[in-house]
Order: sequence, then structure tokens, then C-alpha cells
Amino acid sequence: MIKTDILIIGAGPTGLFTVFEAGLLKLKCHLIDALPQPGGQCSEIYPKKPIYDIPGFPEILAGDLTKNLLEQGKQFEPGFTLGERAETIEKQDDGSFIVTTNKGTKHHAPVVAIAGGLGSFEPRKPAIEGIAGYEDKGVEYIIKDPEFYRDKKVVISGGGDSALDWSIFLTDVASEVTLIHRRNEFRGALDSVEKVRELTLLNKINLITPAEVKGLHGDGKIEAITYVKDGEETKIETDHFIPLFGLSPKLGPIGNWGLDIEKNAIKVDNSLNYQTNIPGVFAIGDVNTYPEKLKLILCGFHEATLMCQAAYRIINPGKKYVLKYTTVSGIDGFDGTRKEAPKAVVQAIN
Amino acid sequence: MIKTDILIIGAGPTGLFTVFEAGLLKLKCHLIDALPQPGGQCSEIYPKKPIYDIPGFPEILAGDLTKNLLEQGKQFEPGFTLGERAETIEKQDDGSFIVTTNKGTKHHAPVVAIAGGLGSFEPRKPAIEGIAGYEDKGVEYIIKDPEFYRDKKVVISGGGDSALDWSIFLTDVASEVTLIHRRNEFRGALDSVEKVRELTLLNKINLITPAEVKGLHGDGKIEAITYVKDGEETKIETDHFIPLFGLSPKLGPIGNWGLDIEKNAIKVDNSLNYQTNIPGVFAIGDVNTYPEKLKLILCGFHEATLMCQAAYRIINPGKKYVLKYTTVSGIDGFDGTRKEAPKAVVQAIN
Ligand SMILES: Cc1cc2nc3c(=O)[nH]c(=O)nc-3n(C[C@H](O)[C@H](O)[C@H](O)COP(=O)(O)OP(=O)(O)OC[C@H]3O[C@@H](n4cnc5c(N)ncnc54)[C@H](O)[C@@H]3O)c2cc1C
Ligand SMILES: Cc1cc2nc3c(=O)[nH]c(=O)nc-3n(C[C@H](O)[C@H](O)[C@H](O)COP(=O)(O)OP(=O)(O)OC[C@H]3O[C@@H](n4cnc5c(N)ncnc54)[C@H](O)[C@@H]3O)c2cc1C
Repeated sequence: MIKTDILIIGAGPTGLFTVFEAGLLKLKCHLIDALPQPGGQCSEIYPKKPIYDIPGFPEILAGDLTKNLLEQGKQFEPGFTLGERAETIEKQDDGSFIVTTNKGTKHHAPVVAIAGGLGSFEPRKPAIEGIAGYEDKGVEYIIKDPEFYRDKKVVISGGGDSALDWSIFLTDVASEVTLIHRRNEFRGALDSVEKVRELTLLNKINLITPAEVKGLHGDGKIEAITYVKDGEETKIETDHFIPLFGLSPKLGPIGNWGLDIEKNAIKVDNSLNYQTNIPGVFAIGDVNTYPEKLKLILCGFHEATLMCQAAYRIINPGKKYVLKYTTVSGIDGFDGTRKEAPKAVVQAIN
Repeated sequence: MIKTDILIIGAGPTGLFTVFEAGLLKLKCHLIDALPQPGGQCSEIYPKKPIYDIPGFPEILAGDLTKNLLEQGKQFEPGFTLGERAETIEKQDDGSFIVTTNKGTKHHAPVVAIAGGLGSFEPRKPAIEGIAGYEDKGVEYIIKDPEFYRDKKVVISGGGDSALDWSIFLTDVASEVTLIHRRNEFRGALDSVEKVRELTLLNKINLITPAEVKGLHGDGKIEAITYVKDGEETKIETDHFIPLFGLSPKLGPIGNWGLDIEKNAIKVDNSLNYQTNIPGVFAIGDVNTYPEKLKLILCGFHEATLMCQAAYRIINPGKKYVLKYTTVSGIDGFDGTRKEAPKAVVQAIN
């Protein structure tokens, strides 16, 4: 059982900044995310694209924002349960909650902050007969750890940035990389397209277009796939088949937690602290809704900050918290580090 | 008469970010500030100190945040009325407002956003007989444009960062710099103290401590001052006397605008768009109050963003605005510039 002060569901920008604000209040956070990496939409959908409306950044790549938020919260030592989906919530007699993932990992906390964005990112799966039986037996929809493919044969399928970028990356890891796409045209960043072209010419990527994977073979695990090109079937050996057709967010199990839901989002009390209809459960960032809600990153930051104050009061009943400026008080990390502004000196000059 | 879409009172971080968010909605802003420079508390009180809780910046100097916010809003060409205090507001028959400063400058806008922080920064004035009569006649409490002191004799009084830093700066501009402080000890950044020590040794700063300015002389303008040190009076010639005893914020005239005021702050409807009790007048950032209000920079950013949506509807009645992501739609500046993410290409690879 993982125990923490604030259990955060969703490690997008809102969840990540919560770690920092909670840390200022000496509250510890643990994050659950269905994705193998933190960052939410920013890291899954558009890591290399610039955002222009993060206050104080005339321009920042979504991936860099994620990196910065991780760095900003680092000293508060957040825990992570990645690659798992929060599935059920059970209220305990003492008012605390146990949240269990699809893999059975249990988390216990007095406060739950749902920062689930548009929902848990779930892969779009191709309709190939028998594919479900091969999941985690050679078929993966998300690449969690590239090292897993070291010296293996992999077939990637897809026509967007993920398919392009992972094909490029895995040429240095896998023994053989095949990229199959049902069209001749790929859609992605110019430099990714050009790099795949170059690696194809160098025979480091085996590019097959327009073609579609139609059959999966193997005894208990993938050993080969069949693709169809120009009406002709070809069978090739492979250890892995990785369809990268994008991830789409689904509110999913959270929809059955007894929360007030409106248009796929969780209603909260925005006149106070973004609490849901279940006391102790908050919803912040893209996942919540209230009059005049804007699904913007900067709004999630504010919501997280106000929510932490309410969490503090739940966790420290009767204790009064006086807001301190970080500039004035500095920051004491849970890892023993301290950040503080250089102190003014008081000195006679002559 | 200056005309604009949103008239912003206060050019602190909240007011500056409003320029950007309004610009995304094609609304133009004009800012009034009592200070000679934008940045509010960040530039007036702690420009060289790090802030740790701006989301995405593990650390940023308050002065750099101001610079970044100006840069971020630049393409939306904000207007500025600096060094003037917004004094009166008059509602017009068509619902718009005319705001007049203490210097008589008039501004006309359909929407007013008060981002006045803790109030208009007003200098602390030393109690020296007759000083009021010399104001702007050789006595200045704020240095607006250092060039004004080119080849002049100046006497600066004060013992903090402003007194130290301006003494240093003016050694390159003025013909003579005298620094008078009633204690031997100065309180400031170590490097400022050391620099003043060095310049004093080089005779570029004439340091007189512990001493106090007691008399001002001159016919229609300052020609000399008298200071007392060790019980003895000395008269020295000077063109300017600049007491830098700090600025303190005062809600001031805004307190008489008919707004609901609670503990020196303006009550707003935080469940919607931070509107005050006067329709068309909003209050954002440190200047407002509502249940659970936190006086933090990041909260002002959120409040400004939601406020702009309401301003849009007042200015474009009946028109529907659909939120666009800056990453997806790019930014069209009023100056003709365009920022946008590199487009994905759609290309066949072989
Ligand atoms: C192409 C694009 C461009 C954008 N441009 C901008 C822009 O310019 N400016 C801007 O402000 N915003 C922009 N956005 C929106 C911005 O990305 C979102 O507002 C932001 O990501 C929301 O952050 P979040 O942390 O609330 O949620 P998300 O980033 O959506 O993160 C939520 C996370 O929660 C996880 N999750 C949900 N449910 C569960 C569960 N049950 N179990 C485990 N994990 C779960 C998800 O897997 C996900 O990783 C853009 C979005 C897109 C797609
Ligand atoms: C030492 C110190 C450290 C701080 N540290 C932090 C920190 O770490 N994190 C954080 O989030 N916040 C911090 N703060 C608070 C932060 O600076 C404020 O929240 C922020 O500046 C508020 O921004 P604002 O734009 O709302 O108002 P302000 O920055 O106060 O700006 C308001 C401006 O409005 C002007 N004004 C007001 N009335 C009038 C008028 N009638 N006419 C003309 N001009 C007018 C004022 O002159 C002023 O320039 C700190 C503050 C101080 C003093």
C-alpha cells in the first residue's frame, strides 16, 4: 500500500505543479498516470511544439515545460505509479481514500486530487484478428522502455510523429526496424520525415508503404506478422508488433466514482477550492468544469494552488497556515535541500 | 483622450499578462501606473530577488519575470501612462468609462481592469520643513529618467537598495554624487554595498554617515541642503535632493470609486470573471479579494485570463468566442508579426 498526503490522478502539467504547491505546505504527493511518462497532453501529444501562453514564457516547448515542472517539484520527492490506470476509489471510515489501479496497485491518502485532463490516455488499437491475445506478448501500443527492444526485431505501424520518431530511435536499439503504413504519405515534423527517409536509404529502416498488417502469428507470443501490399500478402518474422495509432483520452473509470459529471468533466466548486461533490476529492485542470472554465494550462496551475490550501486544512485540522512568499521564506525540500534568495547584508561602508 | 479596449490600472505582473491574454482576443490594452516603470512590486521592491513559485520556472528573478511578461505582450502594442496615478472614474451614458490621472491625462474604454496590487506606490517622504514646496523643483522621490541628472549635482538620502543602487548608477551620469544616511550601516545586496564602498574610496561617491538632511535652500528651486552630523550643521550646494526612503502602496483614490472594499481590497465575483460591483469594472491580482484568495502572482495570471473573456463579451456583444490553443492557432500580433508552431508536413518517404 502506497501512502501519501495528496494522491494525484494524472501527471499532466496540473498534477506536476500540485507537487510543488503541496510541498510548500509540507504535504507529500504521489501521482498515478496511465502513460509511462509524466507530462500529460504536453508530453504525449505535442512535446516538440511551442506554447505561447504560459505566463512569463514568450515561447516554450511543451516538452520543456514538462521538464521544468518536474525540476520545480523535484525537491518535494513525489512518488509515481506510471503506466497504470486509477480504476476504483473506496472511502474509508476515517474519511481517507484507497485508490486501486488496473494492475492492482493500492494507494492510500486523506486527499485525492483528480488532475486527469481529458481522461486516461488509452491507445487506439487496430482491428486485427486475435490481437488482444498477444497484448504484452509481443504486441505493445505504447513504448515504455526502449531498452526492452534491445537486439529484437520490431515492426512499427502508423503514419504520424510517434511512428516516425520511435522508428528513428529504435534503429539504435533493435536489431531490425520495419515501418509499415497504409499510405505513402506520413504526417509529421519535417525533420522526422527527412530522418526516416535517410535511414530508409541506409537500410536501417525497412519501410513498407502502402501496406497494412492483417495477421499475427506465434505460439503464446508474436513470432511473425502478415502484411498486405498491392493485394499481396507477405509474412515476416518479428519479435514485436507496435501499432502506434495515437492515444485517445477517456474519462473511463473515474466516470463511475459517484462524481457529478457534466459533458465528460467533473463539476467543482470554483468559488472555493475546486472540491467535487465528494468531500476530500478535488478536480483540477482540464478534467474539471465550472461556469467560465477555460481548458488552459495556466488555469490548472491556479486551481492546483488553491486546492492545496484546502488539502492542508483537511490534513492538519485546526492548524492555521499563513501564506509565505517563496522569495522571502525560501524553500525547504523534503530531500534536505534549501533554496533561498541571497540575504541582504547590513554593513557600515566606511 | 487616450482610447483603448481594456484600460488597465496597474502595470504589475497581472496587468502586464492581461495585455497578452487580451491580445489573443484581439483586444487592445492601455496601462496606467504611478511608477515610472512597469513591473509593480516585482520591479519596485525586489527586482533582483528570485521567485520560486512561478509555474515552469524553478527560479526566476522578479526583474526577469517583468522583462519576460513585457516581451510576451509586446506584439499586442500596449499603451502606457507611467508616473501618473489614476484618480477618478466616470461612467458614460453608453456604459464606457473615462479615467483621469492626477496629471489630468484622460483615458476612455468600455472595460476597466483594476490590477492595482496593494495600491498605487507612493514615496515615503522625509519630514523636512518646506520640502513640499520643492517637489519637482529639485526634490524627487522617484528617479524616472537618470538622464535628467546629467552633469548635475545630486544628494541622495536613504540606506537601502534604492539609495545604494542609484548612487552607483548616477556616478556615471551626475557631476557629483553625495549619499547621506542617518546610520553607518546600509541594508542591501552585498555587491551593492561593496560597490558603494569602492566608489567611495575612489571619491566618486561622497558618503556622509551618520547624518541627516535638515534644511533645503534655494529660490524657486533647490540650490543647497543642510545636513547634521555629530550635532554639527553643514551646508552643501546641490541641484537635486533625492530622498529614497522606499515606496509604500496606498489603495488611494480607487477607494472612493464606489467599489465594494473589504480590508483594503476590492471584492469580486470569483465564481465568474472577477467583476466588481460595478459592471464593466474588474479587479484582478493582489488588489481583489474573494473567499480563499491568495495574493500570488500565478493567481493574478488566471484571474486576468478569465476576465478577458468577460471583456470580450462586453466589447463584442452577441459575438461568440471559441477558445483556440496558441500552439495550434499561433499568434497574430497587432504589429503585423505572426508566431506559429512549425507545421507538420505530409510527405511520401520513398
Ligand atoms: C495540440 C494541443 C495544443 C495545445 N495548446 C495549448 C496551449 O497553447 N496553451 C494551453 O494552455 N493549453 C494548450 N493545450 C491544452 C493543454 O495541453 C491542457 O490544458 C493541459 O495538458 C491540461 O493539463 P492537465 O494536467 O489538466 O491534464 P492532461 O495534460 O490531460 O494530463 C492528464 C493526465 O491524466 C492521466 N489520467 C487521466 N485519468 C487517469 C486515470 N484514471 N488513471 C491514470 N491516469 C489518468 C492521463 O493519462 C494524462 O496523462 C493544448 C492541447 C493540445 C492537445
Ligand atoms: C518581497 C516580496 C516577495 C514576494 N514574493 C513572492 C513570491 O515568491 N511569489 C509570489 O507569487 N508573489 C510574491 N510576492 C507578491 C507579488 O509580488 C504580488 O502578488 C504581485 O506583484 C501582484 O501583482 P499585481 O500585478 O496584482 O500587483 P502589483 O505588483 O502590486 O502592481 C500593482 C501596480 O498598480 C499600481 N497602481 C495601483 N493603484 C494605482 C493607481 N490608482 N494609479 C496608478 N497606478 C496604480 C502600483 O503602482 C503598482 O505598480 C512578493 C511580494 C513582495 C513584496
